[in-house]
This record gives sequence, C-alpha cells and structure tokens, in this order.
Amino acid sequence: MINGERTIQRPLRWGMIGGGRTGQVGYKHRTGALRDGTYQLVAGAFDLDAERGRDFGTNLGVSGERCYATYQALIAGETAREDGVDVVSIATPNFTHYEITKACLEAGIHVICEKPLFFTVAECDEIAALAASKNLIVGVTYGYTGHPLVRQMAAMVAKGMLGEIRIVDMQYTHGFNAGDDTDASEAQVWRTNPATAGATFVLGDIGTHLYYLSEVVLPELKVEKLLCDRKAFIPSRAPLEDHATVLMHYDNGARARIWVSSVNAGNMGSQRYRFVGAKASLEWSDSHPDQLIYEVQGEPCRILHRGMAYLEEDSLALDRMGALHTEGLGDSWSNIYLWIAEAIDAKMRGDEAFLSTHRYPDLKAGTEGVRWLENCVRSAEAGAAWVDFA
Amino acid sequence: MINGERTIQRPLRWGMIGGGRTGQVGYKHRTGALRDGTYQLVAGAFDLDAERGRDFGTNLGVSGERCYATYQALIAGETAREDGVDVVSIATPNFTHYEITKACLEAGIHVICEKPLFFTVAECDEIAALAASKNLIVGVTYGYTGHPLVRQMAAMVAKGMLGEIRIVDMQYTHGFNAGDDTDASEAQVWRTNPATAGATFVLGDIGTHLYYLSEVVLPELKVEKLLCDRKAFIPSRAPLEDHATVLMHYDNGARARIWVSSVNAGNMGSQRYRFVGAKASLEWSDSHPDQLIYEVQGEPCRILHRGMAYLEEDSLALDRMGALHTEGLGDSWSNIYLWIAEAIDAKMRGDEAFLSTHRYPDLKAGTEGVRWLENCVRSAEAGAAWVDFA
Amino acid sequence: MINGERTIQRPLRWGMIGGGRTGQVGYKHRTGALRDGTYQLVAGAFDLDAERGRDFGTNLGVSGERCYATYQALIAGETAREDGVDVVSIATPNFTHYEITKACLEAGIHVICEKPLFFTVAECDEIAALAASKNLIVGVTYGYTGHPLVRQMAAMVAKGMLGEIRIVDMQYTHGFNAGDDTDASEAQVWRTNPATAGATFVLGDIGTHLYYLSEVVLPELKVEKLLCDRKAFIPSRAPLEDHATVLMHYDNGARARIWVSSVNAGNMGSQRYRFVGAKASLEWSDSHPDQLIYEVQGEPCRILHRGMAYLEEDSLALDRMGALHTEGLGDSWSNIYLWIAEAIDAKMRGDEAFLSTHRYPDLKAGTEGVRWLENCVRSAEAGAAWVDFA
Amino acid sequence: MINGERTIQRPLRWGMIGGGRTGQVGYKHRTGALRDGTYQLVAGAFDLDAERGRDFGTNLGVSGERCYATYQALIAGETAREDGVDVVSIATPNFTHYEITKACLEAGIHVICEKPLFFTVAECDEIAALAASKNLIVGVTYGYTGHPLVRQMAAMVAKGMLGEIRIVDMQYTHGFNAGDDTDASEAQVWRTNPATAGATFVLGDIGTHLYYLSEVVLPELKVEKLLCDRKAFIPSRAPLEDHATVLMHYDNGARARIWVSSVNAGNMGSQRYRFVGAKASLEWSDSHPDQLIYEVQGEPCRILHRGMAYLEEDSLALDRMGALHTEGLGDSWSNIYLWIAEAIDAKMRGDEAFLSTHRYPDLKAGTEGVRWLENCVRSAEAGAAWVDFA
Repeated sequence: MINGERTIQRPLRWGMIGGGRTGQVGYKHRTGALRDGTYQLVAGAFDLDAERGRDFGTNLGVSGERCYATYQALIAGETAREDGVDVVSIATPNFTHYEITKACLEAGIHVICEKPLFFTVAECDEIAALAASKNLIVGVTYGYTGHPLVRQMAAMVAKGMLGEIRIVDMQYTHGFNAGDDTDASEAQVWRTNPATAGATFVLGDIGTHLYYLSEVVLPELKVEKLLCDRKAFIPSRAPLEDHATVLMHYDNGARARIWVSSVNAGNMGSQRYRFVGAKASLEWSDSHPDQLIYEVQGEPCRILHRGMAYLEEDSLALDRMGALHTEGLGDSWSNIYLWIAEAIDAKMRGDEAFLSTHRYPDLKAGTEGVRWLENCVRSAEAGAAWVDFA
Repeated sequence: MINGERTIQRPLRWGMIGGGRTGQVGYKHRTGALRDGTYQLVAGAFDLDAERGRDFGTNLGVSGERCYATYQALIAGETAREDGVDVVSIATPNFTHYEITKACLEAGIHVICEKPLFFTVAECDEIAALAASKNLIVGVTYGYTGHPLVRQMAAMVAKGMLGEIRIVDMQYTHGFNAGDDTDASEAQVWRTNPATAGATFVLGDIGTHLYYLSEVVLPELKVEKLLCDRKAFIPSRAPLEDHATVLMHYDNGARARIWVSSVNAGNMGSQRYRFVGAKASLEWSDSHPDQLIYEVQGEPCRILHRGMAYLEEDSLALDRMGALHTEGLGDSWSNIYLWIAEAIDAKMRGDEAFLSTHRYPDLKAGTEGVRWLENCVRSAEAGAAWVDFA
Repeated sequence: MINGERTIQRPLRWGMIGGGRTGQVGYKHRTGALRDGTYQLVAGAFDLDAERGRDFGTNLGVSGERCYATYQALIAGETAREDGVDVVSIATPNFTHYEITKACLEAGIHVICEKPLFFTVAECDEIAALAASKNLIVGVTYGYTGHPLVRQMAAMVAKGMLGEIRIVDMQYTHGFNAGDDTDASEAQVWRTNPATAGATFVLGDIGTHLYYLSEVVLPELKVEKLLCDRKAFIPSRAPLEDHATVLMHYDNGARARIWVSSVNAGNMGSQRYRFVGAKASLEWSDSHPDQLIYEVQGEPCRILHRGMAYLEEDSLALDRMGALHTEGLGDSWSNIYLWIAEAIDAKMRGDEAFLSTHRYPDLKAGTEGVRWLENCVRSAEAGAAWVDFA
Repeated sequence: MINGERTIQRPLRWGMIGGGRTGQVGYKHRTGALRDGTYQLVAGAFDLDAERGRDFGTNLGVSGERCYATYQALIAGETAREDGVDVVSIATPNFTHYEITKACLEAGIHVICEKPLFFTVAECDEIAALAASKNLIVGVTYGYTGHPLVRQMAAMVAKGMLGEIRIVDMQYTHGFNAGDDTDASEAQVWRTNPATAGATFVLGDIGTHLYYLSEVVLPELKVEKLLCDRKAFIPSRAPLEDHATVLMHYDNGARARIWVSSVNAGNMGSQRYRFVGAKASLEWSDSHPDQLIYEVQGEPCRILHRGMAYLEEDSLALDRMGALHTEGLGDSWSNIYLWIAEAIDAKMRGDEAFLSTHRYPDLKAGTEGVRWLENCVRSAEAGAAWVDFA
C-alpha cells in the first residue's frame, strides 16, 4: 500500500524539457511525479516559445529564472547551481530524445524520457555506455506498466498459474486519426514525419507500450521471428503507418499477434492484452484497468479486482486507493515515477544491490522497444516478410 | 417479423444423415428446422450404430421403417416412396460430405450440409455442376449468419454508413481443446485426423464461419493476398492446427486479421467481428448476439438492439422474439433453415427470379469456404508465406 | 441435455386461443411448444376477427375447419372430435383468462395460460378445485424460468452456497411506455384499462415474472410484510401504474426490493435478479442469460456459463445448444412447454408420484402471483403502507 | 482541461487532522490535494499515537515540529506562526468532526471535513453561523462528485435532454462487512458505535455520497416524503444499520429509490446512479467512471466517454488525462480539493461574486447530507414509515 510516505532520502529536484501548455503528455508526467512529494518541479524548458514557456512554468510554480528558453540553457543554468536539478524529464518530439538525453547525461543529470526512446539501437547502446560511465539512470515512461494488476499478471505467470505460455494477443488501437491530417495538430504533424518521428508512427507511438508490457509479464520468452504488415490508410502518412499487424514466434513455440492502429474508427477500448497458457489465460485492458480476467479452462471465469487481499503481494504493495475505488492512468504513472526515483536514489547512494533487483522501465526497456521497432520496419520493408529477430 | 406463418407451399419432407444421439450438432439442425412447421422430420440414417439410430429416430417421432442403417439405404428407401424426402441434412464427419451429397443429388434429393463443405474446390465445382443439372439446391449451415443483426451490418455497410472499409478483425476461439486428446471424444478424434477432417482442424471447423460472415457483410470486397500461420500446440494434432492466424489484403486496400483457435484456455467469448471503415466501425459477437456496437469516430458509441424500430428493414424482417427478449443460436439456425426451404420451394416452383436475389448460404458460399481453406493451407505449408488468393 | 427425444407418450394435440397475427406473444408460445414434436398445433381461435384468424391459422398449418371464430366454438368443435385437442394455450387479454380457463377445464381440456393468471385469488382457488375435480393440469407461462441458469441458482441456494439469504434485489423495467398512449397499440390499450387488465398494469404484466422466479430460487422463504409504492407517470393510465417499487420482509429477516416499470426511458436491460446471502451472491439477467455471476465475499468474482460441466446436474439437464452457443428466450419457453407437457402426460397416465416432485409453473405458481398482486394493490391503495402479506 | 497551472494566488498551507498511517482515507486526501501544487502539506496531527504520527508526518515531508500530538496543539502551534496553516482537513471519526471544525474556525482556519459532516442539522447551522462570522470556508469531501462526467450529467439535465425527471435510482453497496465484526478494524469499530459514528452506519458512511451527487445533478428537485427501511444483518451493529433502502417522493412527482449496504456479499460494483426522464436516461457508475450511458427512448443506447469533444464544456474543463486514458477516484478528489482551494482563495480575496456561482461541496452540501440522515433515521425509527421531509 502506497500512502505517500517517502521511500527515498530526499525529494528529487526535477526539471522538464517539453511538456508545455499545448503538449499532450506534459500533465501526465507532472501528475505522475508530483503527487507524493518525491519530486519537486524546480526548472523547465517547457516550450519552443520561450515566453509562453516562462508564463506556463511560473503558473506551475517554477521560479521565472529557472524557466529556460532551450534545453541547452536549462542544462547550463542548472549545472551552474548548487541546487540544480537531479533529473529531467524529456517530453519532446522523438527526434530530439537522443540529443537531449546525451546532453543531460554528459552534464551529470539523470534522465526520464518518453517512448520511443531513440531512433536506433546503436543510439541506445551509445547512451547506455555513457550512462554507465556517468553513473546515471535513464528511465522510460511506459506509464501503463505501473498498474498494480500488471505486476499481478507477472506474478501469476511466474508462479506457473497459466502453464506454459502459448499465445499472446495484444492490441493498442484508437480512431483519432481516422480522418486525414488536413487540420492536424502540431503533435500529429511531427508524429507522421519520419524526420521528427523516426521510422514509425503508431508502432513507436503506441505499439512500444504493448511490447514492453509483454516483456514485464513474460520475462522468460524471447522473440525468434517477427512479421510486420503495416499500412498508411491516409496516404500522406506514408512511409509511416497508421495501422500495423505484427506476428511473432517466441523461442518456446508461443505465438503472438499484435494490432496497432490509430484509424480504428470510433474505438475507445485502447489497450487490450491476453496471455494464454496451457492451463489458463489472463486478460487485461487499460480501459477498465482495475479488473483482471483470469480464465482457467473448465472453470468459471474469474474477475480479480485491484486492491483485494487475494492478490499477490507484488500487486498489493502498489495499491493506492484501496479496493472498490478506481485508479486511473495517473496512478500508474506515479508508480513509474516513484520506481525511477528509487533507482536514482539508489544510484546516488551507490546501492547497486538494490538496483540489481529493482524493476522499472529502464534504459534496457527503452532499448528493447527500439530493437522491436527496427525489426518491425525491416519486416515491413521486405514486404511484410518474416525476419529473424535481431 | 417472423411469426410462424408458412412462406412456402407445403412443409418439406426432411431426412437427416448423422446427427444422432451422441452427436454434437444434430439438435442444432432439428431445432433450426422444426420450430415453424417448414420441415417435417420423416426419415433418418442417424447413427453408424443402426440399432441405436433406430431407437433414437423413433424417439424423435420418425417411424421405425424410415430409420435407416446407412445413408445409401435411406436414399434407396426414400426414393422408392411416393412421399419420400425432399431434402436431407448431412451432419456427419467432413470426409463423408462429398460422397453423401453426390449420392443425394443423383437421387434427386436437395441437400443441406455441414461446413466445411468438402475437401477441395474441385469437388465443389463438380457438385455445382451436378446440382445445376439436377435442378437441386445445396445449402450450407453457417448457422450464425441467420441472426438479424448480421443482416443489419450488411445493410449498414451497403448504405455506406461505415465509409470505405479499411480493417476487418475476426476471431472465433475457445479453449475446449487446451488439453491433449488423451480422452478425446469421437468428434474430436475425427476432427484432428486429416483422413476424416480434411486438410484443417480449427480453420475448417470454426474459421469458415468467420470467412462466410465477412462475405455476407462485405460482398464487394475480394481477397488478393493471404498469409496463414498455423500451429498444433498439442503435437498429436499436427499436421492439422489447433491455432491459426490469417492475414488478408483486400482488393480495395483493406486489411484483415483472423484468429482461430481451440486452445484459447478458458475463453468463452467465441466469435467476435469488427468491421472498420473510414467513418465508423461495427462490432458484433455471438456471445451477446442481440447487441450491435456502432462507433462513429468522434461521436458517442452506440449500441443497437435486435428488434428495435430504428434498425434496417432487412434486419427487422427476421425478428422472432421482439426487442427486449433475447434470441439465441437456435433462432439464427431457424432462419438459415427457413431461407434454404424457401430456396428449395422456389426451385420446385421453377422460380429462378426469386432465386436470383434470394440470399442464403448456398453452394457458392460453401465453395468459397473451401477455397479459403485451400489458400490458408497453401500459405501455411509455404512457411506462413504470403500467397495470391486463388 | 435436451436433444429432441420425446419424454412423453405421444405428442399432445394443442390448440391456441388468441395469439393471432397481430398479437405480441403468440409466436413465443408456438416457438416454445413446437420445436421438439411434443405438441402438434391442430386447432385455434386465434383472432377476434374470425376471417383473419382462419387465414392466419391455415398459414400455420391448421386445417380451416379447426380455425374457430370463438373459444366457445373451439371447445365445442374439439370436444366433438375423437382427435380433439388435449390442451389449449390462452394468449388473450387478462380479463378473459378466468372464463376461458373455466370453460376449457369443464370441457376436459388441459390449460396453459398467460400471466397474470386471473384477477383474484378467489378465482384461482375456484379453478384449482375445478382442475382437481377434473384431473386436469393448468400451467402458467412464466417463460424465463425455463432457463438452465435459473435452475442453477435454485440448486446453489439449496446447497447453501450463498449462506442464509439476506437481500433480494429484482428489477424488470423497460421504457417502451415512456411516451403517452396517444397512438397506443391494441395491446397497450387493454393493458392500461382496469376492466381488461385487472387491478395492475406493470406489476401484473412484468412484475409477476420477478416474483415467480424468486419463488423458484428461494422456495423456503415466505413474505411477511410488503409495501408497494406505485405511480402512473402517464396520468391516463391511473389508477393502474407504469412504475412501482415494492419492498418486502421475509420470515427469516431477509429484505427484498423490487422495481417494475415501463417508463424507464431507453432501458433495454430488462430483467435483473440479485440474491445475496451471508457468504455469497448470485446475479442473473435475462439480457445476457447464459452468464451467471457468482460472488463469494473476499474471492474473485466468478462468471458461470450455461452448458459447462461445472454446473449442477439440474442445470445441465436442460441444456440444448451446448456451452459457447447462446440460448434465447425461446429456448426457455420450450423448457416450460416441455415441463407442462410432461405434467399433462403424467396426469393422463395417472402418475401422481411423478407429479408430486415435478417442477413447472403450475396453478399454484399462478395463484401466488395473483396473491402477490393483491397484496401490492392493498398496500398501494393504503398510501404505499406496509401490509401483512396475506 | 486541467494541466497543473495554478488557478489561485499562492499554494495554500495545509494541515491534516487524522489520516495517519493506519487510516483508510488519509491518502485519498493527500493524493487529491498535493498533485498540482495547490496545497502544501506543512502540518499535521496525524495520529492519536503522537510518536507514530510524528514519524509518519516526517516521512510525508512535514517538519517534526509541526507534527502535533493533538488537534488542539496543532491549532495552537499553527496560529502562533506567521506561516501557519490556511486550512486543515479533518479525517477523523465522525464524532470529532463538529468539535474540531468549531475549534479550527474559531482559530481562523478554513476547514475541509469528511462526511457525514456532523451529527445534527443544529450543529451544522451553528457552524454555518460561525463560518460566516469568521469569513471562512468549510468544504466537505464528497470525492466522487469531482468526476468530469458528473458535471456532464448535471449539464445534460439542465439543458432538458432527459425531459422532466421521473425516476432516480441510486446504489452504493459493497460486501466488506458481510461477516461479523469479530476481528473488526479500528475503523469498523467506531463506524458501528453510535457514540462515535452518530445515528447511522452505512447511511452516513456511503449513502450521503449518493444523496449529494443527486443534488448536484438534480438541483431543482426537492424531496417531499421519504421512507427508510434499515436493518443490521449483523446484530451487534444495531441500532445502526448495515443495509438500508430509502424511497423518496420529489416535489415534481418523481420517485427515488436508494440502496445502501455493506453486506452485499461479493459486490464490487460500488456506486451506481440512474436518472430517468420523460425522454431519456443517464446512468453512471464509479466502477467504470469514464463512461456515461445515455439512453434516449427509441434510439440506440449511447456511451459517452470522458474527455471527448462532444461533451459539455463544463465536463471538458475538468479533464486531466485526455480521452482514451482512465481517470480514477484520486483525480476526482483532486478536483474537489481544487474547487475548495478556489473557494478559500476567493474568500481570502473577498471575491463574493466568484463564490456566488462557484460550485463545490460546501457547508450547505454537508448540512443537507445530515438533514437527509435525520429524516432517514426518523422514518426508520417510526417503523420504516413515510415521513415528510423536514
């Protein structure tokens, strides 16, 4: 049960790059970071429009002098201070993640970054070496994986309650881009331009959430082969995709199918996961995240509720609101932010033992997401052909 | 509204081949055929165990002399009578469908046959020629497609309410074969033996339902390419499959994904269909068949209920129980049986005009199901490769 | 498992009074009675419009001479025949139930009657004496109680799986009468006129279903006190009600609350039942009748599916379609009709031992429904006051 | 859209009385108050165990000197400081609400109090006079009413989209007290003792949420008559109740029925509201709070999703996470806390114009909840008789 008591030595001094007034994701970071006094928002380069960014930042309670015009200015200004930021969150378009992360790490600042992390695995590996040499943490905001029932699924799989895993079925779709991009938002414009988004649109934007969650629940399974069939139903989005189907073969013979789309007209179901084993299945959706469906073949279907005493300890430890009361995406983000804070705190304390077992969406999680995207694109460009996962 | 009033000249004299006491599907045929006085069950070769078949048949009200030991005896006996059967239903293992259908047609008897219809398209074409020459009907029991809301979906698509079709997502899965076949039922044994089941297990057994329903709803779309990835999680079922994923590209650029499985442990959801267009989507499942989800992008999700006056005439014409009261699979079967009876009646009356527009799961529907299976197997045997649909 | 095999000596010769082309309920009777060859429809007085009734009847396959202009003519005609009807179903407005039932019984014909059975308990008692003296059966079409999961609930309660019953929550509501009766159907006109409907509208029309089902599931509980608060939101329906709330106290201290309404605008949920015991609860709705929710306090919620092997024998014995395939209201009606046929058959055979344990909606069930209505009206007319159940 | 920008002059200095480590509700207050920098937790009397309270408070980031042993000490200590608290939240057992509120107000501190507010309307009126004289705010944490879809319902009713209101159906039930209180938690012990809980258990504890939400959605309706039938299924809880049914008549002729229970074994559905008008209905449940069901009679059922552009401005203004992403109870609490902060801020600024239209659960809301409880108890003690609402 999380009740707000501090699990780290002191609140982290936190800055944001991006996430300004007009952004979609900035508030998710803030509501995740700020609710328990683990982070204090003290600096930001919130907006490409420096004036607007300053106005916004001061409304958030950041002092005007620490509302910077650029991320470079933020790094310079904060590293010059005794009380400079410990960590920054990067909530900017994809193409800037690598350069900002690199600059922050070089300046000795921990990083929390949006997904997809970078454009290439090579970039990830380079950053990994840098972070290691600097003794810094890079976390990735796969925000949904903070939900207590995701940990519940992982625990049940680990205990063998499903039997050998056979089928993985995952879907993250919506219909908000069913129309063309005539009046597209700024966020939509950069997301559909390879120069700013990278080699994918929906695969990177939402598909990486699916892949990471599957890694959390099924840590033992490795992908052997993959096929990605992608398409831009709105032609202007090509070569990027607004719809993709991915098939995967795991090393134990299991099969996965993945659907990612932003043209699934009218769909509000969002994410859906089903893990099928030889004995039983688990199904979870972020559209009613406090319920987990557990189906043992030949027995009545069971619905498990967040916060109930029959759940695994791993899940109950994350509970905030108690059973009967819903938790939302923000609660899940706050767990992610808490885990990353605990990693940074351990790093600061030099507690590698803690870090060796501490679970959070780390640089490796970000890297594996990028690797998955590279494989998807390689398959798609080969005509939706099977490729060995590499 | 269907209220039991006869739509054909006289009740059809009907016989059953298979569908005996121990069979799974016999009652579905009978409850579909008998509720409205359209068919009269007057003969049968219900069982390979002739004694048991006779006992069973007389319990159904068939006179003992018309309970035959074999289908050959049934054909011989019934053709020798003035009041012999007009039509027989074939509810036997797959490998017998072709020979029994052929024998019935040669004897001048209309046929209603289980799916998958035959083993090959070549057999289908041969039977088509025979049926044409004999002026006889062959219907196929794709029983779910009789539901009023399936016709509703077809009507809405035809009116353009979805816009150009982009994505088709279909699933028919259950978990009843999650365990191995150690104590398999007779029905399970023949379904997993290529000699008796044909070249597929779940693709033919349940997947053909999906494909036919998609043809009913989307008559304008043609498959161009197809990929089938199949697997036997229970090795003894190989080379047949207990799990398969099929991807399809349509000629208009639409994409389909299909999941068929009998090892989806614990799953009771059965069939689920989603048709996504540029403007809106439709979603229907046979697990709550009286509700149709209609989602226009940017508008509240709508749930349409069977029997309500706002539905299309095509759908309301099929209503039996009235809104507020559920219809089940049996009601859907009774519509299929009624449509086939109307086809037979028209054929008897020589009313080809009626037949030219009358919709029911006919020999062509059965043929297309077999064609789809042939393409699936061809892809699977090529290593889950894309194949041009042929 | 019901597969159509006959459980009685011979099909019953069956007539209908009412239930003609324009009626709402006629087809429910026919689809319930005719699917298994248990009944043969051989006569009818289908319609007040004799010509239309004859046309309708012959379309149903009844010979013209046995399509009668009035119920009196039917009784006269049929009792004059060797092969006259064994049983008639009464699907006419409420005010005629008593006189037709009485006439049929006096003529030696078994009766199946719509609910609410009669206007008063006194009438019920009189008919009970008549039926006993004539050795005839009177069944009542509480059609929903034929569903296999209703028997499942009764079996689970009987086994003590819920613990002592504490709370009963029942609802049968819809919104089809939310508007006024300006263009009311014929059926709506007679249902809102005390002369033709009796002392209640929705309480009798739909509320009696709730009460009877609760008696089936909770045979041990007796009502001690009752309060009925009723209202006509459409004033022209007064003194009858289109909305009512009933509270009840049982002899074991349990509490019930009942909601009956036809002005619940937009509501398509129809019937909902919840039975709460000291340990666990059961919840069932006829809008997804094949699923039963079973909630043990402190354990995951369980959903039981019709037809699964884990159900009680009592439930499985009624299964028609097998698990995974939906049953509808018609299937439930066919069980009711089968049970009544078995009662009539036993009566014909003089098998009182069978009758002593055979469960079906009998004359007592109909009587208790009328008694409940009398108590409701008594309470309502006393200003929604508590009354001792009498 | 709420994105964390400050809407008040400066963060409020905030203290907590109760809500310590072992309390159930403390974290709900904190997660509601702290996420947007509107409140700063600077003081507390968190626990009757002073040592534990200090340890807890410092873990929350409160300085040790401002972790007080008693509420009296907190008031004394804080009023002695320049930077003393502006406002305190009271999360203690019911019987202390009145005395603590009074003491705080007398000391010039704004108050946010748990429900049920006080024991009697007389106390409420006295406190209202005191608050007015001191120019202070008293808010009540009816936390669920902060959800954007509650405001959506109020807006739709106000626009007449439902037509004249006819029926209100509300339920807040769970089963956590289905067993007896042998090993009851501290919270359960005081909740079932009239000396500490007041004259009700579940009516006050959860029922007041229902009543207040109905006032928010239906501000025009006034209760005329009320009947409350309550019972303690666990006898040791008497004279308090663990189950109650309340019926109400409104001045426009509408009818309400309310169910409150903590012995609804296994139930996890929590709160459910249905508002039925002459034309349409709204249904909302806090168990899937981001969906609102809107049913217009004769049209397909509509499901509205939080955050979508088709919603009313009043609702969209409260959105935090964007459509497609769930909000939980904590998000709703944070809106409540924000509204109360805005009220306090306005009071500080002397902006009575703002206050005259500002909507939040204020002292009047708390008072009406107590009034409703008084009427419920009066009815119950008269034998579940109808009483005029006074």
